[in-house]
Amino acid sequence: MERGHFDGLFLADTLGVSDVHGGCTDAAIRYATGTPRHDPMLLVPAMAAVTEHLGFGITGNLTYEAPYLFARRLSTLDHLTNGRMGWNIVTGYMQAAAQAMGAGAIKGHDTRYDVAEEFMALMYQLWEGSWEDGSVVLDHANDTFADPTRVHRIHHDGTYWKLDAIHMVEPSPQRTPVLYQAGSSGRGRDFAAGHAECVFLTGKTVPMVAPVIADIKARAVARGRASDDVLCFSLATVVVAETDALAELKLVDFQRYVSVAGALSILSTNSGIDFSTYRPDDELPRIRGDAGVHSIVDAFTVGDPSKIWTVRGIAEASALGGRGPLFVGSPQTVADGLIDWVTQTGSDGLNLSAATCPGCFTDFVDLVVPELQARSRYKTEYQPGTLREKLRGGAGAHLPASHPAEHARRGERASHSAKAAERAFSTE
Amino acid sequence: MERGHFDGLFLADTLGVSDVHGGCTDAAIRYATGTPRHDPMLLVPAMAAVTEHLGFGITGNLTYEAPYLFARRLSTLDHLTNGRMGWNIVTGYMQAAAQAMGAGAIKGHDTRYDVAEEFMALMYQLWEGSWEDGSVVLDHANDTFADPTRVHRIHHDGTYWKLDAIHMVEPSPQRTPVLYQAGSSGRGRDFAAGHAECVFLTGKTVPMVAPVIADIKARAVARGRASDDVLCFSLATVVVAETDALAELKLVDFQRYVSVAGALSILSTNSGIDFSTYRPDDELPRIRGDAGVHSIVDAFTVGDPSKIWTVRGIAEASALGGRGPLFVGSPQTVADGLIDWVTQTGSDGLNLSAATCPGCFTDFVDLVVPELQARSRYKTEYQPGTLREKLRGGAGAHLPASHPAEHARRGERASHSAKAAERAFSTE
Repeated sequence: MERGHFDGLFLADTLGVSDVHGGCTDAAIRYATGTPRHDPMLLVPAMAAVTEHLGFGITGNLTYEAPYLFARRLSTLDHLTNGRMGWNIVTGYMQAAAQAMGAGAIKGHDTRYDVAEEFMALMYQLWEGSWEDGSVVLDHANDTFADPTRVHRIHHDGTYWKLDAIHMVEPSPQRTPVLYQAGSSGRGRDFAAGHAECVFLTGKTVPMVAPVIADIKARAVARGRASDDVLCFSLATVVVAETDALAELKLVDFQRYVSVAGALSILSTNSGIDFSTYRPDDELPRIRGDAGVHSIVDAFTVGDPSKIWTVRGIAEASALGGRGPLFVGSPQTVADGLIDWVTQTGSDGLNLSAATCPGCFTDFVDLVVPELQARSRYKTEYQPGTLREKLRGGAGAHLPASHPAEHARRGERASHSAKAAERAFSTE
Repeated sequence: MERGHFDGLFLADTLGVSDVHGGCTDAAIRYATGTPRHDPMLLVPAMAAVTEHLGFGITGNLTYEAPYLFARRLSTLDHLTNGRMGWNIVTGYMQAAAQAMGAGAIKGHDTRYDVAEEFMALMYQLWEGSWEDGSVVLDHANDTFADPTRVHRIHHDGTYWKLDAIHMVEPSPQRTPVLYQAGSSGRGRDFAAGHAECVFLTGKTVPMVAPVIADIKARAVARGRASDDVLCFSLATVVVAETDALAELKLVDFQRYVSVAGALSILSTNSGIDFSTYRPDDELPRIRGDAGVHSIVDAFTVGDPSKIWTVRGIAEASALGGRGPLFVGSPQTVADGLIDWVTQTGSDGLNLSAATCPGCFTDFVDLVVPELQARSRYKTEYQPGTLREKLRGGAGAHLPASHPAEHARRGERASHSAKAAERAFSTE
């Protein structure tokens, strides 16, 4: 990925073993769908040690993480990666997670966003407000690591959390990691417009994606942020080979490995609909009659309305491409498709899903990246600095003043030039 | 450390910035004593990626970690390290940590151990009882990752936690990481005798250490475990050079860098006594009059009862050697001292503290290890297998049947030979 100048690698996460399909956990365990899942944070330090520019986005569920410990973990990771951390903020939608965490019934959707607002305010205080810029003086002659007058205790007595402490870790290169979000509901879009710097979106067609991107950016502007303060990355899957014909053959080969049963298990988890109650050959009209099934079915079938879809067909479509478009072809064909897609949807970039791993990424780097570079539609080198600086040329390492984290800041902010000088010193 | 065949590297941790010294956090921040502290778990994956045998012990505070997330994190680490993880079980003694976690007043000492017993029982269920040996079948022909009939849901409805879930991660090489503990109270020793496989002890003299080791092992035997099921590692600091004279010069050099104020800040945190109320030149008799000061002062002065100790002297003594013996000299002198110490105290090994880092470890590996090897008192190669197998030659990768974790197990246990065969397969 770093060879292909990817901005970052993103690790999804869910807690709890899904029990929607068949009303039990058997399918998730048998087909390894969402299970096992390792802690994504712990995978980053080893990858960071052998890369220099690649960013790392990890999913962290604020409903279940303890604020003080979580803030420290992200600060440690931002230090270890030299400022290459991102956090995908999730509130969790799975009942299994609530049971695993002893929380009883899962919280309602709007309550989860109330929780999220309080959690974010607390994170900003710990990351931005506890240690002032310049508080770490490293003054050996005076036996002083940091100036206590510039390090502040955070007092928080909220609805969901209490905390009275100094952040355990001195400021990391980015302080607050780059904030990712993927909520698509009205409340989710408002949250993204308020807090997120990057948003992941899904949709198989331009009309499904473009209005959402326009809406999120409009909501950000309404909150006093710039339209490009929120970068929108839409989902896409690419199957590429030297020629269109070879790419089609590769796709056919990939389809041989699709587990229909596994795909239905994932569909059940993601939709809340128990797909075990259908037979693979059931046709779409029968399913369409069931309440709630429309949206999940539409998400995978809208690209080809004339086709008679079966449950098996939906499973196969979801397994390769998912809720995003599937681009299959030569480097030229794929580049044409991606450029059209990004232009028409207004996407700032792509969240590339893996049909195979690492094969799909190797193919993309070897075949698609050079083609996009030849058309001047893809960077030929990384920007210097942190993930935030790489994603937004000309931006600083820290969140901009238009972001709500600004309210948590204490003390004078170091100028960009002073920060650049510090960085130059630390790498000498 | 791996070059010198160290069994493991241990990372201490505390939560919260200490405010005992002077009744505020200034000293901890100014002298960087216990602050900043990074999450120790996140330092392991990068170190594990460049080592093959070295074990990693991290401190995890069970009073504040969420059981389901914590169990997964340790399982992920045990997978990433190929079975080289250890967990130093702590319950936390700092009021600052309780405030940071919104827990109000810190729990009483005995309550903390009640909490610990319940937490351990829950960990054993997740690590040992959720996924049976052999449950992961990797049967590609039948599209099956794991056999759902051999993966079990853990139901826990206890005093301090509720949980109803399947562990998120398939069994790691050791399942339960090697369990370390350092409690020295009666309740702490009982806890260690029941759960710990390794115990860290401190004490400057043989009479301070030998009876504690004997007592812990006796308590383990009383619980049906073997005397050497609990390995006792006593603290020691080594300053070594080519000759005795050069080692003494090295010690004098080290002493030049001791921060008396910083050492008093740490002493205050560890003892709960505010040492800022004394002047550095105050003599011991004045301090001895204060209630509670005896034990902390004795811990550092007992080796030299004739000397008139000042506060400054105690600070200096604590900064180099701490609560354990200090061995200074040539490789021969140090080896003589260490062998006598280990023999007389009944220690199973040493917890080597760093006067400087990494210098003290480099010196030990270059100078002391070869001397101990020449006397056949130190291994010349690592045992194969996991940290547990390395620490206890002939033991299996999993906890022995005499350990309380046994009660949490489900299904038939794979035989050692079957396990060895699996391992041989997986490394082919």
